[in-house]
Amino acid sequence: MSAISTEAAAATPLVPVLAVIGVGLIGGSFAAALRDRTAVGRVLGVGRQPSSLAQARELGLIDEIVSLKQAAEEADLIFLAMPVGAMESTLSSLKPFLRPNTLITDAGSTKANVVAAARAVLGDRIGQFIPAHPIAGAETTGPEAAQADLYHGRTVVLTPLDENTAADKAYLTRVWERCGARVMAMDADVHDTILASVSHVPHFLSSVFMWQVASAEDSDLRMALAGSGFRDFTRIAAGSPEVWRDIFLANRTAVLAEIQEVKAALSRAEQALQEGDGTELQDFLEHAALARRFWGSRSGLT
Amino acid sequence: MSAISTEAAAATPLVPVLAVIGVGLIGGSFAAALRDRTAVGRVLGVGRQPSSLAQARELGLIDEIVSLKQAAEEADLIFLAMPVGAMESTLSSLKPFLRPNTLITDAGSTKANVVAAARAVLGDRIGQFIPAHPIAGAETTGPEAAQADLYHGRTVVLTPLDENTAADKAYLTRVWERCGARVMAMDADVHDTILASVSHVPHFLSSVFMWQVASAEDSDLRMALAGSGFRDFTRIAAGSPEVWRDIFLANRTAVLAEIQEVKAALSRAEQALQEGDGTELQDFLEHAALARRFWGSRSGLT
Repeated sequence: MSAISTEAAAATPLVPVLAVIGVGLIGGSFAAALRDRTAVGRVLGVGRQPSSLAQARELGLIDEIVSLKQAAEEADLIFLAMPVGAMESTLSSLKPFLRPNTLITDAGSTKANVVAAARAVLGDRIGQFIPAHPIAGAETTGPEAAQADLYHGRTVVLTPLDENTAADKAYLTRVWERCGARVMAMDADVHDTILASVSHVPHFLSSVFMWQVASAEDSDLRMALAGSGFRDFTRIAAGSPEVWRDIFLANRTAVLAEIQEVKAALSRAEQALQEGDGTELQDFLEHAALARRFWGSRSGLT
Repeated sequence: MSAISTEAAAATPLVPVLAVIGVGLIGGSFAAALRDRTAVGRVLGVGRQPSSLAQARELGLIDEIVSLKQAAEEADLIFLAMPVGAMESTLSSLKPFLRPNTLITDAGSTKANVVAAARAVLGDRIGQFIPAHPIAGAETTGPEAAQADLYHGRTVVLTPLDENTAADKAYLTRVWERCGARVMAMDADVHDTILASVSHVPHFLSSVFMWQVASAEDSDLRMALAGSGFRDFTRIAAGSPEVWRDIFLANRTAVLAEIQEVKAALSRAEQALQEGDGTELQDFLEHAALARRFWGSRSGLT
């Protein structure tokens, strides 16, 4: 191997051409992470809002603003980072121009519905799509919120399909690991049930609570006396209404089932309070506090 | 006025002798704040746990470990910083030794029950007690968690009694302002209703949710996929079970009433989801998100 070809090989990044569809927090941070680790060559950006795209280019998150057609024709890896409700139409637009060796993945918070949409649209090209969900986010949105270390230490769940090749799965795992993430694989339905519990239901409850306080007649006084507990409990309620509407609708059955479980637990705790049963109440609070402290000490999330 | 007496006058701190009953986060931070602003002379500490008291003295939060009798005999200001369920017995022990010019205040998260307990115990000395609630805290506990700036920019609610003198109310306001706090006054019942909404119910819901997730058969996998939304939503559930049991029992009626309101809101949101009504769902999420963002931009709580 000559010096020149060694140099050329060393210069070939893990992802020669990346296309990010949706250049907000999730897509922008993915591009930023790979760029930060010199793991990407050219980054193409696609989006609905010209202002966001322009900002992403100014911030150096993307190199070029392109169409879905160009993204399909030029990218080695296509990263779908938009509300789950928009995945199907996006895949439809990509399909006719898709090269056979291009890999598509996504960052959707629900997986069974994305898989169904991808199967319906991609047909015999479905093997080129590996569904994924990076468990990271923030209440901020837009390209200006993107950060190269958003995925550092976070878990990325792949819900691979039978049609995916081992090589493609290993490649995508390597890409996410370059972003600093831990990669896990599981069935799409299991993912959706678990996420209903630890992500979707908390968001639903936080939003319901925030809505109820804001709708009260004396909401101004309530807000004036709200402290740090309120701040933490309601932080997620500030998230994108559009994104979360899509998530709730997409994972409706699991979310509704899980809400029933929470309501059953609430009834038990309410009854203990109603009866003034301090022992039962403390027992339940202690169980919750110990579980939360244990999780906090192991999660790596500060 | 001679140079010597001027010097002596300048050296008299706002609180010559402070007694802190309960030297944890709340009591320790109060002492630390006043010390930091050179607003206190000597600090006496009283508590149930010898180890906490020794630690508080080592950390310089208190100067001396004393009995309730000594605190009553020597202090100019007595700060009650213990679970609300322990206020009545503490006041009973203080009463026989209380000097007529000593002011007592508290940091209890509920006020009507503390006022009732104080009236029952203090009798014609009730004017010496000004109920208060600094709206500040953390999921950490103990003297090592104490910080001089805990109350900086926070709201302290006084729920004064008809028997309190204007001079005493002005003095306590000045003391809290020296700690960097904003002081508001309101009726004890109003305080309890408002706090049920923005503090007690969030804690109750967060604990119920945490309990439910921790009790699930697949709780390990759930916890492994829990992210930053889960972290924020459940942070308060790690708080002291004893403290919160007392708060819930003390403010039972208002908390139960407020839970009913949240459940009514939850039913509405659930129904929209059940019906797959995306418009209604987004409307509700948007209302919540806008209210939370507005609050966040004004609360000064980061």
